[in-house]
Amino acid sequence: MSTGSALRVGVFVFDGAEELDVVGPYEVLAYWAQHSALHPEVVTFSADGGGVRCAKGLCLVPDHSAADVGPLHVLVYPGGRGTRPLTADTEHLEWVRGMRASTPLMTSVCTGSLVYAAAGLLAGRPATTHWSAFDELAAYDPSVLADDEARFVDDGDVVTSAGVSAGIDMALHLVSRLESVAAAREVRRGIQYDPAPPV
Amino acid sequence: MSTGSALRVGVFVFDGAEELDVVGPYEVLAYWAQHSALHPEVVTFSADGGGVRCAKGLCLVPDHSAADVGPLHVLVYPGGRGTRPLTADTEHLEWVRGMRASTPLMTSVCTGSLVYAAAGLLAGRPATTHWSAFDELAAYDPSVLADDEARFVDDGDVVTSAGVSAGIDMALHLVSRLESVAAAREVRRGIQYDPAPPV
Repeated sequence: MSTGSALRVGVFVFDGAEELDVVGPYEVLAYWAQHSALHPEVVTFSADGGGVRCAKGLCLVPDHSAADVGPLHVLVYPGGRGTRPLTADTEHLEWVRGMRASTPLMTSVCTGSLVYAAAGLLAGRPATTHWSAFDELAAYDPSVLADDEARFVDDGDVVTSAGVSAGIDMALHLVSRLESVAAAREVRRGIQYDPAPPV
Repeated sequence: MSTGSALRVGVFVFDGAEELDVVGPYEVLAYWAQHSALHPEVVTFSADGGGVRCAKGLCLVPDHSAADVGPLHVLVYPGGRGTRPLTADTEHLEWVRGMRASTPLMTSVCTGSLVYAAAGLLAGRPATTHWSAFDELAAYDPSVLADDEARFVDDGDVVTSAGVSAGIDMALHLVSRLESVAAAREVRRGIQYDPAPPV
């Protein structure tokens, strides 16, 4: 990779991306970027560089377009209902395959893996998705080895997470893998991630 | 309250708000809004209605300004380094006191409680904040009954949460309180919030 930052992370955003799918990993990775001696860089980008309206209505303005985001070490592809039109968009799937060819680590949150499956990235590989979307995942690619118990599945150059909030756990794993367990623990402490669901 | 929606929730955003402080509760509450028969409404707003750059660089465009957001049942005030200038902004603190007078339920995430303390809202009351900010909280108001063990503190018309990710737990509690435990469980299931920190 001839990239400026060896640890450049791009979070792809699109209309209908689920808010926490985007911001859970973004928070973890950007916190890491702010504190790590490896100087990772985390950027957001949309297809055309324009603002997007997420699934619940939150409007984000990304840093870049797909054309100008530059080489990435890690792609984070969120889920959300906005993934469904993208699974049928042949031009977009071609772009995803192009990213696969140039990006060492492809990651997805929730139903982001449906787009990866539709693009052929998950053929014969273990992966996960939102608990409600395993039938869809199999429909896009019946050869996917669906794991409906894992919080995230690390298959080397592809890491997929379960639904929405699972992106936080996956991102901590990515920090652990890209730097160290200690670095990931520092992020966890920084964002006070000692979850205690009250219901 | 003479409000259109009895359950109108406003998430206040500002430059330097921490991303997950904003989006954790937003996701929980907006998911609830989309599924609840009570038809809650969740909106974002900034002081002047303009876009904001969050603490780690994410740019959000809110739905409203403070002037046009209208009456709220619940205010969510996030934390982040952007809270510090606001604790010294007398006009802003006056606005916070005005919101207190007209908003049944005032909530904060992380260091959002520093602004509430600076505005005098927490005098003699139990509250929490980010684990690293208890000295600051006491400096803004030494009469606050700081709780450094709770994930969130529900003191009736004020609910404060611990750092960053604790806003997710607080928001689930709010759904539980504003509708039912069953409704909160449905949201938890929807966002697959079965956290499993890998480090």
